[in-house]
Amino acid sequence: MKPNINAERLWSSLMELAKVGATPKGGVRRVTLTPADREGRELFARWCREAGLELRVDAIGNLFARRKGADDAAPPVVMGSHLDTQPNGGRFDGAYGVMAGLEVVRALNDAKVTTRAPLEVASWTNEEGSRFVPTMMGSGVFTGVYKLDEVLRNKDTDGVTVADALKSIGAAGSAKPHKVAAYFEAHIEQGPILEDTKTTIGVVQGALGQRWYDVLITGQDAHAGPTPMELRKDAMLAAAELTLEVNRIATTYPDNARGTVGHLQVKPNSRNVIPGEVRMTVDLRNAKDSTLSAMKKDLLATADHVATKRRVSISLTEVVYFPPSEFAPELVSRVRSAARDLGFSHRDIVSGAAHDAVYMARVAPTAMIFVPCEGGISHNEIENARASDCAAGCNVLLQAVLATAGA
Amino acid sequence: MKPNINAERLWSSLMELAKVGATPKGGVRRVTLTPADREGRELFARWCREAGLELRVDAIGNLFARRKGADDAAPPVVMGSHLDTQPNGGRFDGAYGVMAGLEVVRALNDAKVTTRAPLEVASWTNEEGSRFVPTMMGSGVFTGVYKLDEVLRNKDTDGVTVADALKSIGAAGSAKPHKVAAYFEAHIEQGPILEDTKTTIGVVQGALGQRWYDVLITGQDAHAGPTPMELRKDAMLAAAELTLEVNRIATTYPDNARGTVGHLQVKPNSRNVIPGEVRMTVDLRNAKDSTLSAMKKDLLATADHVATKRRVSISLTEVVYFPPSEFAPELVSRVRSAARDLGFSHRDIVSGAAHDAVYMARVAPTAMIFVPCEGGISHNEIENARASDCAAGCNVLLQAVLATAGA
Repeated sequence: MKPNINAERLWSSLMELAKVGATPKGGVRRVTLTPADREGRELFARWCREAGLELRVDAIGNLFARRKGADDAAPPVVMGSHLDTQPNGGRFDGAYGVMAGLEVVRALNDAKVTTRAPLEVASWTNEEGSRFVPTMMGSGVFTGVYKLDEVLRNKDTDGVTVADALKSIGAAGSAKPHKVAAYFEAHIEQGPILEDTKTTIGVVQGALGQRWYDVLITGQDAHAGPTPMELRKDAMLAAAELTLEVNRIATTYPDNARGTVGHLQVKPNSRNVIPGEVRMTVDLRNAKDSTLSAMKKDLLATADHVATKRRVSISLTEVVYFPPSEFAPELVSRVRSAARDLGFSHRDIVSGAAHDAVYMARVAPTAMIFVPCEGGISHNEIENARASDCAAGCNVLLQAVLATAGA
Repeated sequence: MKPNINAERLWSSLMELAKVGATPKGGVRRVTLTPADREGRELFARWCREAGLELRVDAIGNLFARRKGADDAAPPVVMGSHLDTQPNGGRFDGAYGVMAGLEVVRALNDAKVTTRAPLEVASWTNEEGSRFVPTMMGSGVFTGVYKLDEVLRNKDTDGVTVADALKSIGAAGSAKPHKVAAYFEAHIEQGPILEDTKTTIGVVQGALGQRWYDVLITGQDAHAGPTPMELRKDAMLAAAELTLEVNRIATTYPDNARGTVGHLQVKPNSRNVIPGEVRMTVDLRNAKDSTLSAMKKDLLATADHVATKRRVSISLTEVVYFPPSEFAPELVSRVRSAARDLGFSHRDIVSGAAHDAVYMARVAPTAMIFVPCEGGISHNEIENARASDCAAGCNVLLQAVLATAGA
């Protein structure tokens, strides 16, 4: 019997899981290391046991559900994502990748196929970062990006540490980090490209690099009435010009350049006072590190130019730098081949957001599979995806995993 | 003896008055209808009685201190401004105009000059509008712009009505509105032009008209990472473009055009989320009503253009319209002649802000005299003006009043 995933089983597992932390608007609030997270973990663990998998948990609460391979000493091929959600999150972000991995295992059980390498379904702790910083905490600790001891001391806004939160829901185990042969993560796109181009499968090439800035613009607040235009030091005008320049940079540089001013605070923020101070943020992204550096250089030079022109001072502080990550060409190619062989429309795509796969790519060959989500909307209770797309992505995952783990 | 003001007496009265509600940083907090305001009113009243003036108070608490004229039945020539300040106000805004009027009277007493028309020094209630809306409440009621009954019901943020506040400090009287022959108001410029051009006296032609807008920009919030530039509906980008367009309008139209975006609120205001909504304000000003209308028309058309270009919706609501006010040419001319005769550098200037004089201009020939303030800064505890400039403006006031009231 040729292995094939069960679309209905995948969908009903997703919907069953979405009841854990369900919100009235149809979303999910299953914030990391809360009782709802525990309930989600327990449901997943039960399903894994029912599928004959062996569960291990590490010190940061990452779950690994293992299916034996013919060569059981070989490092496993891992499929996974995360079960935690944003405070007002949706049913698919994270959950889809974990349920897709579980469905691959169930489908192989049905088909009585044993792969050469063992398989694992991983659920990473605190991908969202909404309760505890940093985001992608579990995969970050697993891959050595973060030190366990340091991360355990991080506190939420109520002063609860990660260590306390792990303890309170009994989420920590004693498994040590282990070698991984390959990592696959299925995920909703969280963007509009697949829907916009009527494509079922996104073959993810890697993730954009990111450079984030805190910007402080200092001018002079003054009465809007008595102050002639030529004598102003208007911090808001400078902020507006810099915002348009960020857009210019993002729309003229190649390699999937993006630029966003998402946050802005004006002082004194009174309708008839020329703003004397603006604090704003800039988020630059690019698929190539050299192009991202060029965008940064342009931004800094442009800020100087705007400051001089508008007679204000502008200071920029870089607060985040993530280099772009490139996924493993041979795994990406298997994803593409699987989509083609299964007859799904597909296109190469770059992930604009970071995922656990970005950290996993540092320690193992990695690839991701994107499926469309409605309107590109995510981190929102109305986040939605079609059952047929979820099934398509899961089948691609199955074929790519089989090609990697060996039948 | 030719009348001449006493510069030291003017300055020491200003400084004595500034002790009432003095703040540690050297400013004044004498908010309307508070105990500090009562203390300021009482000090002014005492000085008026000492100068032989007859005090009357109307129902909104406006004070009129009257000096008899040779033709005592003639309507008075009134000098005035306001004694209330912003919560973190300065020593000169308002207080200067009242003290200058008082000093004119004192100087005429010293010189034993009786004018043909009677003189009055007026102190208007609640010019600032920081505790109770509207601004220029006292002069607005006196001139019939506002209905007394309606204004008395307005509440501060603690729910106290104007009527209660008047009662609590015993500020209301029973004087009815009376005819005014002419109105002069001396005031600090509250802008940088006189200082910037090293000019002592601003001969005020009138006040800019104002049109204020509430703007709501609606786009679609989305992840900054996964959303390509061409698929965005970025409300902040539209807000930035509109802000620069407001500046274009204000710097290209003639007749003292001004345009300001002073207030801006972004939603969700998160650094890695494309803003889906921005609320902002636009403040347009111009000395000519027809040019102000053209600016408005340009703003509305530009907003439509920006909305289409940025794939967002933009709605503008006009929340304030003040027509420009032109002061009486014969009075303005007397101010100019006085400055010239006294040998002070002077220039024509238009008031960017509204003053009690703007309402008085609706019922009587009106003029204003501006003196420089340091850095153009006002509504601030560090507001400052030079004693010599205050004296110069007061002497100009004296000469212009003498020319109007008749010697």
